[in-house]
Amino acid sequence: MTEATLRVVGASPPRLDALAKVTGQTRYASDLVITGMVHAKVWRSPLPHAHIERIATQAALAAPGVLAVLTANDLGDCDPFYGPAYKDQPVLAIDRVRYAGEPVAAVIAETERQAAAALALLEVTLIELPAALSVDAALAPKAPLVHETLRWAGHFRDLARLRPVPGTNVCHHFTYTRGDVEQGFAEADAVYEDTFRLPPIYHYAMEPHTAIARYDANGLTVWAATQHPFPVRKELAEIFHLPLAAVQVVVPPVGGAYGSKCYTKIEPLTAACSRKVQRPVRLALSVTEACQTITRHGALCQIKTGVRRDGTLVARQCDIRLDTGAYADVGPLVATKAGFLAVGPYRIPHLQLDARAVYTHHVPAGAFRGYGIPQVSWASESQLDRIADRLGMDPVELRARNLLVRGEAYAPGELSIDADLQEGLRRTATAIAWSQPSAPHRGKGLACAIKDGGMTHSVSTAVVRVHADGSVTLFCGAVEHGQGSETVLAQIVAETLGVRLETVSVTTPDTALTPYDQGTSASRTTTLMGRAVHAASLDCRQQLTTMAAGLLGTEPAAVQLRDGTLWAGEQCLTVAEAIAQHFGYPGGEVIGTGVWRPVWTGGHLGGATVFWEVGMGGAEVEVDADTGEITVVRYISTADVGRAIHRQQCVAQDEGGAMQGLGSALFEQLFTADGQLLNPNLIDYRVPTFTDLPDTFGTVLIENADGPGPYGAKGVGESGMFCVAPAIGNAVARAIGIRIRELPLTPERVWRAFRGEKPS
Amino acid sequence: MTEATLRVVGASPPRLDALAKVTGQTRYASDLVITGMVHAKVWRSPLPHAHIERIATQAALAAPGVLAVLTANDLGDCDPFYGPAYKDQPVLAIDRVRYAGEPVAAVIAETERQAAAALALLEVTLIELPAALSVDAALAPKAPLVHETLRWAGHFRDLARLRPVPGTNVCHHFTYTRGDVEQGFAEADAVYEDTFRLPPIYHYAMEPHTAIARYDANGLTVWAATQHPFPVRKELAEIFHLPLAAVQVVVPPVGGAYGSKCYTKIEPLTAACSRKVQRPVRLALSVTEACQTITRHGALCQIKTGVRRDGTLVARQCDIRLDTGAYADVGPLVATKAGFLAVGPYRIPHLQLDARAVYTHHVPAGAFRGYGIPQVSWASESQLDRIADRLGMDPVELRARNLLVRGEAYAPGELSIDADLQEGLRRTATAIAWSQPSAPHRGKGLACAIKDGGMTHSVSTAVVRVHADGSVTLFCGAVEHGQGSETVLAQIVAETLGVRLETVSVTTPDTALTPYDQGTSASRTTTLMGRAVHAASLDCRQQLTTMAAGLLGTEPAAVQLRDGTLWAGEQCLTVAEAIAQHFGYPGGEVIGTGVWRPVWTGGHLGGATVFWEVGMGGAEVEVDADTGEITVVRYISTADVGRAIHRQQCVAQDEGGAMQGLGSALFEQLFTADGQLLNPNLIDYRVPTFTDLPDTFGTVLIENADGPGPYGAKGVGESGMFCVAPAIGNAVARAIGIRIRELPLTPERVWRAFRGEKPS
Repeated sequence: MTEATLRVVGASPPRLDALAKVTGQTRYASDLVITGMVHAKVWRSPLPHAHIERIATQAALAAPGVLAVLTANDLGDCDPFYGPAYKDQPVLAIDRVRYAGEPVAAVIAETERQAAAALALLEVTLIELPAALSVDAALAPKAPLVHETLRWAGHFRDLARLRPVPGTNVCHHFTYTRGDVEQGFAEADAVYEDTFRLPPIYHYAMEPHTAIARYDANGLTVWAATQHPFPVRKELAEIFHLPLAAVQVVVPPVGGAYGSKCYTKIEPLTAACSRKVQRPVRLALSVTEACQTITRHGALCQIKTGVRRDGTLVARQCDIRLDTGAYADVGPLVATKAGFLAVGPYRIPHLQLDARAVYTHHVPAGAFRGYGIPQVSWASESQLDRIADRLGMDPVELRARNLLVRGEAYAPGELSIDADLQEGLRRTATAIAWSQPSAPHRGKGLACAIKDGGMTHSVSTAVVRVHADGSVTLFCGAVEHGQGSETVLAQIVAETLGVRLETVSVTTPDTALTPYDQGTSASRTTTLMGRAVHAASLDCRQQLTTMAAGLLGTEPAAVQLRDGTLWAGEQCLTVAEAIAQHFGYPGGEVIGTGVWRPVWTGGHLGGATVFWEVGMGGAEVEVDADTGEITVVRYISTADVGRAIHRQQCVAQDEGGAMQGLGSALFEQLFTADGQLLNPNLIDYRVPTFTDLPDTFGTVLIENADGPGPYGAKGVGESGMFCVAPAIGNAVARAIGIRIRELPLTPERVWRAFRGEKPS
Repeated sequence: MTEATLRVVGASPPRLDALAKVTGQTRYASDLVITGMVHAKVWRSPLPHAHIERIATQAALAAPGVLAVLTANDLGDCDPFYGPAYKDQPVLAIDRVRYAGEPVAAVIAETERQAAAALALLEVTLIELPAALSVDAALAPKAPLVHETLRWAGHFRDLARLRPVPGTNVCHHFTYTRGDVEQGFAEADAVYEDTFRLPPIYHYAMEPHTAIARYDANGLTVWAATQHPFPVRKELAEIFHLPLAAVQVVVPPVGGAYGSKCYTKIEPLTAACSRKVQRPVRLALSVTEACQTITRHGALCQIKTGVRRDGTLVARQCDIRLDTGAYADVGPLVATKAGFLAVGPYRIPHLQLDARAVYTHHVPAGAFRGYGIPQVSWASESQLDRIADRLGMDPVELRARNLLVRGEAYAPGELSIDADLQEGLRRTATAIAWSQPSAPHRGKGLACAIKDGGMTHSVSTAVVRVHADGSVTLFCGAVEHGQGSETVLAQIVAETLGVRLETVSVTTPDTALTPYDQGTSASRTTTLMGRAVHAASLDCRQQLTTMAAGLLGTEPAAVQLRDGTLWAGEQCLTVAEAIAQHFGYPGGEVIGTGVWRPVWTGGHLGGATVFWEVGMGGAEVEVDADTGEITVVRYISTADVGRAIHRQQCVAQDEGGAMQGLGSALFEQLFTADGQLLNPNLIDYRVPTFTDLPDTFGTVLIENADGPGPYGAKGVGESGMFCVAPAIGNAVARAIGIRIRELPLTPERVWRAFRGEKPS
């Protein structure tokens, strides 16, 4: 299919969900009213580590409107633990609390206010225990153990790769060796060693976690803001000993996620509440509670790189420590990705990469846009500029010398590089006028990163129904969380079936009704679900052309589907006519199915990468020497999207990622003291606003139609986040000659660095 | 598949919906609460025929909680007419009302009570017009015309067969001729001519019509108690000019239907209300309003039959007039069926059959269990006994002599008889001990009838999903309205897939989510939808065995699916293992599809009958000479089900039909005077209770596995209703020697007949 013949793909039609969203008609999970619904509120531990001595519920039970109080004792025959990697997280704390904010009990009442009021009447006796309140503390000898034992969850096929270190708080230790790193350092002309740090941050989705559960004789239905309806279904089925077919997870449009709604979160607790009272129960978290549910991993990255005088990278050793909090969530997988991809998009023959997800008595950390890459690219891309500076090389030249080329292996068993990285680097540099010098107090910086895109070992399935009037419904489990997947997938259907986009409807994900999908994460939807949707559409097209060929007395190959009409030479039938004639009735429909399933190859990520998600960024900053304030005057992000299915949304996704990256580069961090979050609210937690955006802010889309998705598409969405912090850090270094190694780049930190105070 | 190898089919497992229903957890349409929902109440015409002069809404609009008043003026660009045969029925009366009870305006308010209160504030000025208040009046010269013009609806393929008589109130005149009826009468030894009457009756579903509509930027969603989600979708799409994919009709479990919820009823009005206020609107009818919505056709049947001295039937002429009320609904199709099947299951060479659906200014009449057959069998089976009496023959002997035999044509172009009718007659007679004489004041009677089963020209589609744990979801649009279809269809899946019934879930019909189905009527679900479900299950089985063969290194034919496990010789894989290994991930699923589509052959019913639904009944009654009260002491119904998928439910369906038939035979009628219903409520409308049941009451199931449905099944459900009235009437005649020709057989009517007052 050539560019010229594409009708819908590559355009920027209005989003299918736009009208409902801008007119306030979209019903998010928290807007839903389910017949007979009551409300739950959660009593959370004030201590980071404690033994639960006693929970007295009488006073709360006597409060107005209260139906029940749920504690771990009420979980009955449930298997009360869940988690995508280890089943280490209880529905409610059992005997022990492991972080401040952990759910200990839930009050269920007729109204939300009554449930909240009764929380204060619960009498919970906790006996404080020593806590591991930093990665260093958790790794120290004789540190209090967060977990004594771990049970694999069975969710990921590469489970056997999970390597906890027994008797320690290391929940997973990823390690990778290539060549001989010591020999590499010996061969190098210079070896550089640096330590970089990032704090935990909050996802800041506009919609905090919300779930409504209805547990009754028909089974369990959960309406939830989640990115993973099917994995959540699986965990609910396991917890409550139900067949998959008796568990239904419905996902209304989600108000932002960024990884915070990956896998199971509050769904089991909400379901357990409903099971207790046999009524539908709604649990809607506040922002503070959302901050107490999941964060992005704070990290410490030690990086040592050996380089030849001409800039050729020879060897790298990394030691990455991620604070994964009290429960593993996907921490082990984030550590794996951070470790394995600490090389960046470069050719480095000798490697020794270690990354550890470390349990602490903090809020659990999990998936976050970029999934480990922002952490390691902050370290490795910052260090590259330091190396360029020491070698007296242009940072662009240093990168260009080491970038992998198309077709070159990233690692044995992994997909070869499927992108023109040189083109990306060149266009990024051009976009920020790299070759022109900056004004005083200004500087430019850039960075490059890649990530294995699309989740290597995951399945997507789609069903397409062509109705009797030629309108079409797409069934797929992809979650619309604001990224525009609904419109993009509808475009793929419309393009493939030769119908107008307006005639395509997309169902809401519902595990009882939409076919299996692994989840909406890892920039996978356009590419992997897109492949399933494309296949289902082709299946319908083939059925329709076969049907028309039979009716028109010709061969299927002679029939073309264009604009809702089946053409064979001069003869034609509308889809409606073909269906009516085929079925002998003005009803009936055509149903097509499509599947994406992974090819299991082993590999360090559990299978060959489906595509490489490429993100580059170039920044120009101005630093105020008096206040330390950094103004980003220009930021250009480069995204290799293979082919933009929806051009405007590709740009919006990438710009959104870059803006979120700006926040974590300049402002964002969750402060903790003694295991307590200090700023878990929208006032004290600072994110960028539109006034923080650079005057020049944009995205360069690279489209070589070389992706594995439909029409050559690749995923986008995370890559905008990869490079913001190092590009800005590098620009700051070039503006004022000072290298800051810890995020965020707050005015105070810059100002102190200026004054020569201990650099971070 | 032999009897011995069937595991699930033929058993009587607990219904899948039993627990939820008996514990009150089932949510019917009227139980639903949709977010933001408000309520509508309908202002109905007090006059049967009038011109609408003016509707003043100000006072109602000012009432507390009132959001809007909807009149025909608010329908905007809608196409405001609907109807399955003719689009003759307006969403709200336009200029003219055509029956007392017709919706004229709707008040929409925050609460149901507020809407009801505001109804009294509407000021509607009507100018009464002369009305046609009986079939005779409607057929009289210069009768007021109910409709001046008619527009075909395009729903049925055999539209061209609709024959209104222009300039009259005849909405459809069915006529059929075979042989030469006058020659037949001339050849006969005797000719008998009788007139039989039946009043209109009420369906008496426990749940009156309810709908909730949400019309917003995403399109239109309607939750409705309907038997025809897809045809309702089609009409809504046409009324509101929406693509099918933008209209969603969801059908929660329905609390009984019996035909009253066939095709479009209150859905367009509810949707128009929602469109007006842009909020979800609920419209729940009272019983009185349900009586004002649809009834069963009152009828007059003139029947003339010529017979040889030996009992051989030679010729029959019928003239059937059905009061179809103010709007056609499916009246033309009921008339067609009543006319064409007035022959009964007998060999009669010379025929002249006429049936007219006649418009009157009464409540519309439509589908009702049996669809015309109870009306004509009351006439023809009563007359047969009269003939036997005159000829001095045993009524069983007379019937046996004329019954069609297996393989014999009913009519050219129609399916040949696919049942052993003689066996049915013999077993019915045996079951009521026909050969033993009755006590004084007692008598026995029986009757036979057939009906084309399953809707000849209709489509059903099913999707089956096998989940990763081997549990299964069936997607189909069949409506569970109490008849047990959910369980029967799940049994077909379980049997075909070799899994346990408990692992099969069945989705609620939802046009956005379940694939196309023509509707749940005409005893079609087990047979036609059953075929689609069977095909979809076979599709899954084939995919699973192919998958397992690949994994086990053998041929698909060598793999057997038994009890959730795929066996190849000694090797085996559970379904869960096969899916996990095939997809390389503990997710993924298998999706199978199946379609039933009709073969279009022409024929008088629009296509060859799919199967013949056979119903016979035998009654023994005792008549109290002092009061005229009839006590049915024994009633046995015979149903030829081909194969009982769920034995207990087959019996329950048939007994339910017989009990409903008992009501219409003995008690039920909607009284009207001056076009007003006199008893439209549950107090004054008398239906049978358990105390009315005969001491001996049961069903004989005939199972020759000769049906076209899965495992040899045929439909059942209507047939129990066919024969009750004539069997009881015949028994009464044999008990007291008096033939009553009008239903119901009330004590007063019997008592008056005893006293020699003008027999009906």
